[in-house]
Amino acid sequence: MARYGGIDLGGTKIQTVVTDEAHEVLGSARHPTPTTGGPADVTLAMIAALQEAAEDAGVSRGELTAVGVGSPGAVDDEAGTVTSARNLPDWEGTYPLAEKLETALLAPVGLSNDVNVATIAEFELGAGRPFQSILGVFWGTGVGGGVVLDGQLWEGRGAAGEIGHMVVKSDGRTCPCGRVGCMEAYAGRGAMEVRAREKADEGEKTVLFEIMEERDKPRLSSGIWERALARDDKLAHQLVDRAVDAIGVGVASALNLLDVEAVVIGGGLGLRLGEPYVERIREAIMPHLFADHRPPEVLLASLGDLGGAIGATLLAAQQAPLPQR
Amino acid sequence: MARYGGIDLGGTKIQTVVTDEAHEVLGSARHPTPTTGGPADVTLAMIAALQEAAEDAGVSRGELTAVGVGSPGAVDDEAGTVTSARNLPDWEGTYPLAEKLETALLAPVGLSNDVNVATIAEFELGAGRPFQSILGVFWGTGVGGGVVLDGQLWEGRGAAGEIGHMVVKSDGRTCPCGRVGCMEAYAGRGAMEVRAREKADEGEKTVLFEIMEERDKPRLSSGIWERALARDDKLAHQLVDRAVDAIGVGVASALNLLDVEAVVIGGGLGLRLGEPYVERIREAIMPHLFADHRPPEVLLASLGDLGGAIGATLLAAQQAPLPQR
Repeated sequence: MARYGGIDLGGTKIQTVVTDEAHEVLGSARHPTPTTGGPADVTLAMIAALQEAAEDAGVSRGELTAVGVGSPGAVDDEAGTVTSARNLPDWEGTYPLAEKLETALLAPVGLSNDVNVATIAEFELGAGRPFQSILGVFWGTGVGGGVVLDGQLWEGRGAAGEIGHMVVKSDGRTCPCGRVGCMEAYAGRGAMEVRAREKADEGEKTVLFEIMEERDKPRLSSGIWERALARDDKLAHQLVDRAVDAIGVGVASALNLLDVEAVVIGGGLGLRLGEPYVERIREAIMPHLFADHRPPEVLLASLGDLGGAIGATLLAAQQAPLPQR
Repeated sequence: MARYGGIDLGGTKIQTVVTDEAHEVLGSARHPTPTTGGPADVTLAMIAALQEAAEDAGVSRGELTAVGVGSPGAVDDEAGTVTSARNLPDWEGTYPLAEKLETALLAPVGLSNDVNVATIAEFELGAGRPFQSILGVFWGTGVGGGVVLDGQLWEGRGAAGEIGHMVVKSDGRTCPCGRVGCMEAYAGRGAMEVRAREKADEGEKTVLFEIMEERDKPRLSSGIWERALARDDKLAHQLVDRAVDAIGVGVASALNLLDVEAVVIGGGLGLRLGEPYVERIREAIMPHLFADHRPPEVLLASLGDLGGAIGATLLAAQQAPLPQR
């Protein structure tokens, strides 16, 4: 009777789950990601968050068969290392995350790219289950993408799936990545915040930053955007509309190239805004879709906030047992 | 000792080859595509062009082991039918092209989409040979695309590879397809001609239409664009530059999604303008390429004008013999 640990390492939070063999969640926990220190501190925070999920599940740490991790940055699955995780503190270099976790947890650890893990989770266990080919679109601080073709994750030479950096307007806005006209320059929550601040500085009225201060947040989180929309904030509506349009254009381009069966929309902002905005993305795709007589399904990710961590337990299930110590 | 026939059915010409088992060309012929009549007339013209290639090769028609055809329109490979081939005369409906050819030629006939056939030809026999994953970009009247991943053509639900309809500018020019901002709206030779005529009508000086009349052509063919560039025509330079930029943007978007090893540039205009313009496409990709520390190879198609017909002989090689008649 296997018990799997799953860790979704994000720039703001560490989400963990403990599941059974069928990847049903038995317990979960969420800790803030350390903002100071370095990779070792982040690793210890991951261990603590997993410990809490195990307690929540009533599973002792020694019972964990294996652990999986979805990580940002440049992940080398085979070497078990993470390089240049720029959202994490002092993590520019290469850190042997899998080995450090294995030594501490005394369980085998599988490691992969966070977006790929989330895509596979939706494909195997979530909204993508009925299909053989899907495009995962994770709408958060940036816009990540994952491509599953004929049941297999397509990684190209290691950098496939960068849907957020597909161009939607070749002479458009500068993206946080430094290039011009990327989808993420319009749709990433990071870029949306930059634009909102520009507009506010120009004197445009908005409740976005008021809500941010009321709720004592350092950034315009997905929840703040949702609240501003609920209060019918004009600027919030404008910027979210623009983001939806950019996602529609970029996803349509991807569909014209790949013609997959389904698109699954997740990510912090995608999950928070939910089905009404998935419907609007569906509509925004149509004007640019070539084979528009039979559009693909466009679905909300069904595993919710736990998707990344649950996906990581799929990695755990692929691990061979460690040699006895 | 097999002998294969290959037919590349285009909107303006029918190119045929006869090859040996290794797909080496033994003979070839090129006929204009009928502009009047209907599918039966086009089919007879295909038979005549293949006959001439066989004569050129010193092969009797009875010696042809099998024949392959690359066709425009919506091609049903299994049924052997072609539907809505809008560049061909009176070919809106569904026509059983493979069956008609088999009955006339007394040889098995394989049929597939022209762009896919050209992509596979470059992958198996041309510039794409060293790679496992390529993107074929065929720059002609429109801009067609073919995707090979892990050695297999990726067709999605049948409509993959429409790189010409990836969006490069969401609020840009209207494409011949009716949508807004497609790569083809800037880079397709058809759209380029429309734009050139608009500019000429506005009084802009250009030799494009003079050359067209001198050479008694109904359209701005690839050769006319090449001649106008050689005569340093300002409008021709402007429009070709704009096309190169649009191809760069669209291909970069495709690479950000798929991260393939190589891009192969073919098509009438691509082949005619050749390596100097492939170099410029290579440069136009870079500003929008996400993994720009190791760009893919960008190569000129190496099978030239015969690529489509040679590719069709790969289809021929896959055919089982017909039952004896």
